[in-house]
Amino acid sequence: MITRIAILGYGNLGRGVEAAIKKNPDIELVAIFTRRNPDDLKIKSDAQVVSINEIEDWQNKIDVLIICGGSATDLPMQTPKYARIFNVVDSFDTHAKIPEHFKNVDESAKCANKTAIISVGWDPGMFSLNRLYASAILPDGKDYTFWGKGVSQGHSDAIRRIEGVADAKQYTIPIEEALDAVRSGSNPELSTKQKHKRECFVVLKEGANASKIEQEIKTMPNYFADYDTTVHFISQEELNKNHSGIPHGGFVLRSGETSSNTKHLIEYSLKLDSNPEFTSSVLVAYARAAHRLNKEGNNGCKTVFDIAPMYLSSKTSEELIATML
Amino acid sequence: MITRIAILGYGNLGRGVEAAIKKNPDIELVAIFTRRNPDDLKIKSDAQVVSINEIEDWQNKIDVLIICGGSATDLPMQTPKYARIFNVVDSFDTHAKIPEHFKNVDESAKCANKTAIISVGWDPGMFSLNRLYASAILPDGKDYTFWGKGVSQGHSDAIRRIEGVADAKQYTIPIEEALDAVRSGSNPELSTKQKHKRECFVVLKEGANASKIEQEIKTMPNYFADYDTTVHFISQEELNKNHSGIPHGGFVLRSGETSSNTKHLIEYSLKLDSNPEFTSSVLVAYARAAHRLNKEGNNGCKTVFDIAPMYLSSKTSEELIATML
Repeated sequence: MITRIAILGYGNLGRGVEAAIKKNPDIELVAIFTRRNPDDLKIKSDAQVVSINEIEDWQNKIDVLIICGGSATDLPMQTPKYARIFNVVDSFDTHAKIPEHFKNVDESAKCANKTAIISVGWDPGMFSLNRLYASAILPDGKDYTFWGKGVSQGHSDAIRRIEGVADAKQYTIPIEEALDAVRSGSNPELSTKQKHKRECFVVLKEGANASKIEQEIKTMPNYFADYDTTVHFISQEELNKNHSGIPHGGFVLRSGETSSNTKHLIEYSLKLDSNPEFTSSVLVAYARAAHRLNKEGNNGCKTVFDIAPMYLSSKTSEELIATML
Repeated sequence: MITRIAILGYGNLGRGVEAAIKKNPDIELVAIFTRRNPDDLKIKSDAQVVSINEIEDWQNKIDVLIICGGSATDLPMQTPKYARIFNVVDSFDTHAKIPEHFKNVDESAKCANKTAIISVGWDPGMFSLNRLYASAILPDGKDYTFWGKGVSQGHSDAIRRIEGVADAKQYTIPIEEALDAVRSGSNPELSTKQKHKRECFVVLKEGANASKIEQEIKTMPNYFADYDTTVHFISQEELNKNHSGIPHGGFVLRSGETSSNTKHLIEYSLKLDSNPEFTSSVLVAYARAAHRLNKEGNNGCKTVFDIAPMYLSSKTSEELIATML
């Protein structure tokens, strides 16, 4: 079965979806919807570029719309809106607001007999799945999520807003000793700050005071103050050359007991060259699932928790049993 | 919802299920069925011990039967047979015969409106799930399964059959360099033999010829001949003291690209103090799922691929979204 996809929004994530679709022969990219002037978009596929104003005309031409907007303002509006017209998948990642988003999307999707899958990616997404599986298998245990090594956009932005800073990139890095403590099975209590350190690469504007800026970064409340933070001053050339990627990743661990002194450790980790490209690849697999579920009449809003794994694969049940079980 | 469980077979796996149920407040162990004389069974819970001859009387007293027999001869007979009376879960692990077993169990379960989940555990089971998820997300990639460090029952038995050997334990150990090569993203071609080495702890009978036995082990076809094999001769006391556990574990990795030169690594690993206790804990989580699916009228034979993750957890969908997504 071919799944016809359209992308809404052509930023990092939208471009990632475009790339991911090329790796999936049963998935076809038919359109990219944009709020910009379609003529201004240079894309890397032969999909049609269409103004968002014409999106309703595409109701019967696509099977799933992958919504590639941001969680702050785009998705809370877009996903419920378009779930009235299309099967949709999004990567809504504001954890605290997921229940509200779910409710809004569920209402829309059910009333239009569409299938929507929200909060798809790696966290929320694959990391959530691993937290769930591991806690169901080892109910007497404790789980730990570590992020990194990876670029945090929010922290990089916070540095860039400091006066005298021309450009900056911040990496969140798991603290190896904390990871080892978890792996030892000692079930330590660890706050986010005890699990991660922060490394900053900063380009100064001419005449800026390096030591004052370093101090300002290291004492910035919430973002850096309570963390072990390292600041490196480098040239713009060096930043462009060595820090232009958007790598990320992390670890989900659960350590638990099945009987007295019988311990087990479950560990899942990701090492990603490109955070948005990996997220996009997960979105595409769940778009396949949304299409199939809708064909089966399974409507409404779903999360990764609701989707049986086989729906993600292009292989048949028989092929999966023969090759992967 | 309480799930009432019975166990068929009280070996390592059955005892593991008994232990796992104690960690799950929503699951109740009501009976243990045995082929032995029930009076001879010393169990560690207050379940009733019942002769297998009376199993049919329990049709309305339990929700799921966890079948804890062996894959060679027990399960091919038992699972299809009891899927006509109960919802069942088993850990059938003869990979090549899973399609046939699936078909037999499916027929039985469907004709009795029962739900059966087969091949549950960690491989097949959690490792299979990770192969599926990772390959769906990174279709342009390659996956690798490493087993160990852990005890291989079959290889230990093979050593014990050698003349002059009093007792033995064999560990399968992943080769660190092979793991590192996979993690580097170079997508190496690796046979099972290139991924694992074997370490043997052997107790000799009095007067046995150590060097002859070492030679016999190292040249044993299929089992050891092509592997890097180490043999240690130790006393029975030392074997009992340091090698009486049944630890196991392993790694599932997938390395792939989402676009030219953009690489990703997904790694899942288990480190288990007790292979049967961990397998049992997975069985219990899937027993919960079998009960729920049956309540929803979802009958027939299933594998871990067919089960949406939320069915494994005792938490509600709302709780899962709020705490784990």
